[in-house]
Amino acid sequence: MQIAIVLYDRFTALDAVGPYETLGRLPDADTVFVAERTGPVRSDTGRLALTADRSLAEVPHPDIVVVPGGPGQSDQMDNPVLLDWLRTADATSLWTTSVCTGSLLLAAAGLLDGRRATSHWLALGQLERFGARPTGERVVFDGRYVTSAGVSSGIDMGLALLGRIAGDEHAQAVQLLTEYDPEPPYDAGSPEKAPAHLVEEFRNKSRFILT
Amino acid sequence: MQIAIVLYDRFTALDAVGPYETLGRLPDADTVFVAERTGPVRSDTGRLALTADRSLAEVPHPDIVVVPGGPGQSDQMDNPVLLDWLRTADATSLWTTSVCTGSLLLAAAGLLDGRRATSHWLALGQLERFGARPTGERVVFDGRYVTSAGVSSGIDMGLALLGRIAGDEHAQAVQLLTEYDPEPPYDAGSPEKAPAHLVEEFRNKSRFILT
Repeated sequence: MQIAIVLYDRFTALDAVGPYETLGRLPDADTVFVAERTGPVRSDTGRLALTADRSLAEVPHPDIVVVPGGPGQSDQMDNPVLLDWLRTADATSLWTTSVCTGSLLLAAAGLLDGRRATSHWLALGQLERFGARPTGERVVFDGRYVTSAGVSSGIDMGLALLGRIAGDEHAQAVQLLTEYDPEPPYDAGSPEKAPAHLVEEFRNKSRFILT
Repeated sequence: MQIAIVLYDRFTALDAVGPYETLGRLPDADTVFVAERTGPVRSDTGRLALTADRSLAEVPHPDIVVVPGGPGQSDQMDNPVLLDWLRTADATSLWTTSVCTGSLLLAAAGLLDGRRATSHWLALGQLERFGARPTGERVVFDGRYVTSAGVSSGIDMGLALLGRIAGDEHAQAVQLLTEYDPEPPYDAGSPEKAPAHLVEEFRNKSRFILT
């Protein structure tokens, strides 16, 4: 089972590493990090680079596609190399997935038309404008498309998809070995739960960032 | 505030990326990934490399030290270069932290003698043999030492320490932007919650791995 995790300049690292550390523990998984060009790809802070071991062209038909989000997503929305690759890969993939604003890239490639999907909470409106039907769920399955909410949700998505493919027990074993028994020190992880003024502040900022 | 995240061959990627994505969002944080030598460092699956931008020698006095765990930790337990660096860095750091079996490296460097600390659930016995006092908590503060449990716990540790340093509101903002509102699809993330036969299976295997 070949899993291709897509990197591009200014992606968000946890978006990619969450699914890698969970879904990537599929038995016999052949996980490969891919980008337009091989070599180190800098994440959004500029402080961390992950290596793309293969170019997109070298991995045309992965079984599972994982597209992370991040501030750099907006620069990719009209990148024909990436969007064409997504369409080609999706034509034969068993599962096409995204974390955070990665779903906007799937939508820009025309893969989420009319589908139930999700994204970072600040990007749900944009997802709708690209033809998907946003939901408030953290992980959304629609056929063989699996999208998840912001950044950290890729861990939940990875475990959920792992369970679908390899069975509940294998997914539970991965959850146990990664000791994924979360205890966030605050209850502020969604716009419904966080202090209202923080939500408002980021909504105001996002009008400039996300539209 | 300089944050040094240590890499070594066969570290576990999420151990490093969890704190990076949370604690690394400190205002004015200068996060740097360090290793014995600069360049790509392969994580435990062999499928992902993170770049060490600086050598340990180039970053002798970080304000915060973060040591991830992973299968490669055992090979580092008698590496004088890393252990000496940990002792030197710790002598001036404001916070010395670890995720998963990273705490065994802190202990091997003599930094956790008599301290309350934690590690991956399979490594708590070994932590005790190295002189620390293991607790069952997910994130343990003892003075300026902060250790956390297996793999994914680095996210909780990063947010908790972020709150201590930058205040609750900043940490809540990071939690909201990373949409850290976890919904694990199973309740199997600790040995108390997972199916007993899985816990037993891994305990049996770990006698060969961890001792």
